[in-house]
Amino acid sequence: MQDDALQELIQLFKQLPGLGPKSATRMILFLLKNKEKLLFPLARTLERNAKLIKKCPACGNIGTKFPCEICKDPKRDKSIICVVEDIADLWALEQTGVLKCRYHVLGGNLNALEEVGPDDLLIKELIDRAKEESVKEIILALSSSVNGQTTAHFIKERLKGSKVQVTKLAQGLPFAAELDYCDSGTLTSAIKSRTPA
Amino acid sequence: MQDDALQELIQLFKQLPGLGPKSATRMILFLLKNKEKLLFPLARTLERNAKLIKKCPACGNIGTKFPCEICKDPKRDKSIICVVEDIADLWALEQTGVLKCRYHVLGGNLNALEEVGPDDLLIKELIDRAKEESVKEIILALSSSVNGQTTAHFIKERLKGSKVQVTKLAQGLPFAAELDYCDSGTLTSAIKSRTPA
Repeated sequence: MQDDALQELIQLFKQLPGLGPKSATRMILFLLKNKEKLLFPLARTLERNAKLIKKCPACGNIGTKFPCEICKDPKRDKSIICVVEDIADLWALEQTGVLKCRYHVLGGNLNALEEVGPDDLLIKELIDRAKEESVKEIILALSSSVNGQTTAHFIKERLKGSKVQVTKLAQGLPFAAELDYCDSGTLTSAIKSRTPA
Repeated sequence: MQDDALQELIQLFKQLPGLGPKSATRMILFLLKNKEKLLFPLARTLERNAKLIKKCPACGNIGTKFPCEICKDPKRDKSIICVVEDIADLWALEQTGVLKCRYHVLGGNLNALEEVGPDDLLIKELIDRAKEESVKEIILALSSSVNGQTTAHFIKERLKGSKVQVTKLAQGLPFAAELDYCDSGTLTSAIKSRTPA
């Protein structure tokens, strides 16, 4: 009933994260209804900008100029490198405005099931950066999942004997959280890491 | 913090139905991670197929060949035209496999607030098709919203005095519905249109 040209588009859109066949179809119909205003600009901008956007060879951030905006920012504290799994995590941390340091994007987590090993991530590059004279602290801002913590442990081991201080993000109650809605893992961390009131 | 090229992509994706800034960002990062496998094929297929996909001049369905697959299908009952608001509705009805008729896609509903009048929809075209010798019944498969029912009423008025029978989809309980979860509008329709058991 649906044309091959339409089916081909639905098959492609279905691969995007969070989209099933229904939402993919809805998006394509919306795009086809707005060909000049949205579909063609979107298709062309995707192709054009994707060719411009590359990984920063220093930190793994993405952008169109290298070294990236963050690496070349003279106002940033060069003594701290914050290690994140992904670009989205970098953006989330930047949005807080608390850290004014440089970053290192690993590109994922160690994951035995999906066969992601140390060589698939930018870990070697991080170890090299840690040797820079200016670097005093490495913050491991990795997720508190099993894979995130495995990756953190691996990096900590690799940095043993180096002069840098390795820290990690605090675990505890989320902001404005109700205690009875927190899972016991979160509560356990919050109790263990309790601070003077 | 985010590059202009990235911002431009996020702005475009945010316009798609159901996407906010967070989900748009997630999709773009996913696309950028899978440039060769997904991003370039998607961008190119969008542009290429969008140029091929057009409206069927007879029924308003979309496709790449005209008259469309449905209009030229000799096995379909030419005596019935099913009127729908949108392509997605046509697909939903086709999926039931119950109707083997031709369709007429209006392209929306009459909507006073959004200034959608009769001339913005393919209503004139429907009235013309209703005059064809073969057409005996017009099924108004429009949504049961105020705008859908206004549109149905308008079309019924325009078809007054014509030889075709105008019908509409039954209103009642959804399949496998629990009575206490149904809204009172649905229950009212179900009571009023009760049938012999």
